[in-house]
Amino acid sequence: MNNYSSKLLDQVVEEFAKLPGIGKKTALRLALHLLHKDSNDAESLANSLIKMKNEVQFCKFCHNISDEEVCEICSNPKREKSVLCVVEDIRDVIAIENTSQYRGRYHILGGIISPMEGIGPDDLNIRSLLARITDEDIEEIILALPTTIEGDTTSFYLYKQIRDLEVIVSTIARGISIGDDLEYADEVTLGRSILNRLPYESTIKK
Amino acid sequence: MNNYSSKLLDQVVEEFAKLPGIGKKTALRLALHLLHKDSNDAESLANSLIKMKNEVQFCKFCHNISDEEVCEICSNPKREKSVLCVVEDIRDVIAIENTSQYRGRYHILGGIISPMEGIGPDDLNIRSLLARITDEDIEEIILALPTTIEGDTTSFYLYKQIRDLEVIVSTIARGISIGDDLEYADEVTLGRSILNRLPYESTIKK
Repeated sequence: MNNYSSKLLDQVVEEFAKLPGIGKKTALRLALHLLHKDSNDAESLANSLIKMKNEVQFCKFCHNISDEEVCEICSNPKREKSVLCVVEDIRDVIAIENTSQYRGRYHILGGIISPMEGIGPDDLNIRSLLARITDEDIEEIILALPTTIEGDTTSFYLYKQIRDLEVIVSTIARGISIGDDLEYADEVTLGRSILNRLPYESTIKK
Repeated sequence: MNNYSSKLLDQVVEEFAKLPGIGKKTALRLALHLLHKDSNDAESLANSLIKMKNEVQFCKFCHNISDEEVCEICSNPKREKSVLCVVEDIRDVIAIENTSQYRGRYHILGGIISPMEGIGPDDLNIRSLLARITDEDIEEIILALPTTIEGDTTSFYLYKQIRDLEVIVSTIARGISIGDDLEYADEVTLGRSILNRLPYESTIKK
């Protein structure tokens, strides 16, 4: 019990504090902000949350969130149909889309294999990925999963499933971030960026 | 437009990003968290917000938020009736209550005088404070407003209004925080804590 002299306020603080990265103090600040304002921010937030929960769908092809049965990316005729980028979740799609460097489509696994959290291959959208590779005219699968033990395990699991299916399996480049000093880079990243060096000409903009 | 492939998600992100200290990235993380979970966190948050906005009241005496017409503190017979602590907003009440050192009641101004933001004395709960001093059996008014230009202006304004009303007007002590080194304290605070020095015996716990 927080004892903010109002159980109604307590309840809102409790709910906010369930969100990731929001502690009790921040939750209280948010709740009081929504309470104090003459505006109807609290109602707008509440209504948009309920509307999202009730109406949002997941694309039947790539599992991206969508307002329709098929998401904007999958239904866009300008996107290359032959390349699929496999990602962990929706945030990764947003991050890649923000670069404007990728014109193919996506496949969202909805997680990665993690025995610690009890997530196995069957909990992820892997069967639908294999079905797409068989059914659609896919030429390349780009694995863009995290470089953690779980991510690497998932990438390797997918590679074993896909390698006999006559598609190219690639993975996004890892290396020193652009603008970063070499001396501050971690050894694993620096080591890998030396091993995976590229012909200089390929990095020059034409 | 954020273009997260779902206008429903966009809307929730927009609403979260209106909250203080929540940027677009955090808003997106919160929205996706509420979207992904199998739980009904989104509905609980939405419902508690609507309930709070519709049902919360402000205590008719001290203006604290409350579920009843009179708040828990004002209606508590164990609280001293003769002392009122004047604070800027509800958060200050919570902070003081957490110390368990104050047994009087409160009066919440709902802000401080700030010509920059167009807040004058008439926008604050000052008239009701003066009425309480006259009507109730108040012996002491403790000013616990911020030590900013606006806070000091408000304190001085209140002092001028109250000084002829036969109550003691006091203000909370400012000084070096307990546990802080003197060398790191700012000069104003250190200077004031020397000017406002206390008899040593009064600080010894008995």
